[in-house]
Amino acid sequence: MQWPEEILIREVGPRDGLQNEARLIPAEQKIVFIEKLVQAGLKAVEITSFVHPRAVPQLADAEEVAAGVRRFLEGVRGSGARQVVISALVGNRRGVERALAAGVEQVVMVISASEEHSRANMNMTIAQSLEQLREIAALAAGGGLALRGAVAVAFGCPYRGKVPPEQVLRIVEAMLQAGIGEITLADTAGLANPRQVYELVAGLYRRYPGTAFALHLHDTRGLALANIVTGIQAGVKIVESSTGGLGGCPFIPGATGNVATGEVVYLLHEMGIKTGVDPEKLQECVRWLEEVLGRKLVFPVPV
Amino acid sequence: MQWPEEILIREVGPRDGLQNEARLIPAEQKIVFIEKLVQAGLKAVEITSFVHPRAVPQLADAEEVAAGVRRFLEGVRGSGARQVVISALVGNRRGVERALAAGVEQVVMVISASEEHSRANMNMTIAQSLEQLREIAALAAGGGLALRGAVAVAFGCPYRGKVPPEQVLRIVEAMLQAGIGEITLADTAGLANPRQVYELVAGLYRRYPGTAFALHLHDTRGLALANIVTGIQAGVKIVESSTGGLGGCPFIPGATGNVATGEVVYLLHEMGIKTGVDPEKLQECVRWLEEVLGRKLVFPVPV
Repeated sequence: MQWPEEILIREVGPRDGLQNEARLIPAEQKIVFIEKLVQAGLKAVEITSFVHPRAVPQLADAEEVAAGVRRFLEGVRGSGARQVVISALVGNRRGVERALAAGVEQVVMVISASEEHSRANMNMTIAQSLEQLREIAALAAGGGLALRGAVAVAFGCPYRGKVPPEQVLRIVEAMLQAGIGEITLADTAGLANPRQVYELVAGLYRRYPGTAFALHLHDTRGLALANIVTGIQAGVKIVESSTGGLGGCPFIPGATGNVATGEVVYLLHEMGIKTGVDPEKLQECVRWLEEVLGRKLVFPVPV
Repeated sequence: MQWPEEILIREVGPRDGLQNEARLIPAEQKIVFIEKLVQAGLKAVEITSFVHPRAVPQLADAEEVAAGVRRFLEGVRGSGARQVVISALVGNRRGVERALAAGVEQVVMVISASEEHSRANMNMTIAQSLEQLREIAALAAGGGLALRGAVAVAFGCPYRGKVPPEQVLRIVEAMLQAGIGEITLADTAGLANPRQVYELVAGLYRRYPGTAFALHLHDTRGLALANIVTGIQAGVKIVESSTGGLGGCPFIPGATGNVATGEVVYLLHEMGIKTGVDPEKLQECVRWLEEVLGRKLVFPVPV
């Protein structure tokens, strides 16, 4: 059994986490949140979504957040923060234009592996999403913007149940054809199991050894950490998580949050795998976030 | 990656779970609990401890519980329940004598892998425990009583921290010399990680391919399910768990419960591994137990 020396954790709390908060959080608090994440050692942060404000009112301040984070990162250049990659979600041409104007360096586009979830979540068919992908990829390439892909409900759909691997493959292939080199497999509703994660990821790496596959897992049924372990065994080097286990999916009733960053850090460090994250600073960030949100969040407490 | 077709779940709720309940539960309720477990399909149940009533007052009714369970099992012979193996914990000669008199067919003796935990938990040195083991093994063999072994704090000790694998090996070897064929590796304080579980179990199977190694995990830091997955990868076929996540360790402050049987069943069934347990009947048992104990227990709820 081989284990990697290091795993990159991409924090998605400011985007996937906060978008599920009903109460609007001021942009300046979001910027402080992201600053604390960077100070805790996170090297990749999904900071916001450039989508229609009506679709996700919480992230209507995307430009303001991006500008604040850029100012902060410019201020700390030389201290190691220069290596931090900030990214944002986009869904169409307008989103890419906004991301370019806001000076974000990397965007991600999500496509559902299930027709039912695609319609419910994005109000588009998969075919329409694939068309958008081509347009977004051309625009991003033209603007020098890095583009990642993400496959939603890759391990199971709350509307249709099982999602055949062929459905995931179809989207992965379209993303590769669009020039994408890193693809996140998202267990949007927390339905994946460790055997399935191993088989899907190992199969994708056999087929596309040059592509980086990341995992984005929700902990709905408590299997997220076990899924990360077998994902890593199958070759995953990038794991997405959310500080304090924030998040869920606004279009999937009952979906609990993303796997908590603190739990992922604890798991990996105990296994002797580096993340670059300082658990104490991360814990301080969770405590601060608990005060901002006025409720308890997930963090493993020492015995 | 190979997975087994089937895993035997040994339910330890009536013993390791209930011994941590401050309020005394009447023997008749314990018997109903065990009946419900058997009806839910569990084929191995640790029903009580034959230890001094002052050490564990909750289990002072061991004889009454054993008698009730025997009556129930005799009543349902022919319905499949005949294959149910009930076991009980013993710590010394007196315990074996009581188990024999009560008609229990299998007993288990626990030895700590850390001197500090052995003194705190059993008020004995490891050397004294190993002497007891020889006495217990001789007595059990003489009485036709099956004997299992369990190594406490095999993955880490709350008093001394790391537990070197050599400490575990020393006890495993003494147990094998005493004629024991099945040994449980217990993460008594929930400190194990998936890499460590894989390495320890795989190492033991390389050395002792004819012995059955079981896992007994506490979910203190949320890694129990991930630990089960890598334990199974390393060859484990028997997993101990507790209905509703009951339990902990009375001598380890802050240790949370055993991994919940419902979570283990969910994990394994999702992975296509059989357990013989009916999740709905198990859920009914958890609901019943919640009423008996007057508090919420662990059970994964469908999305």
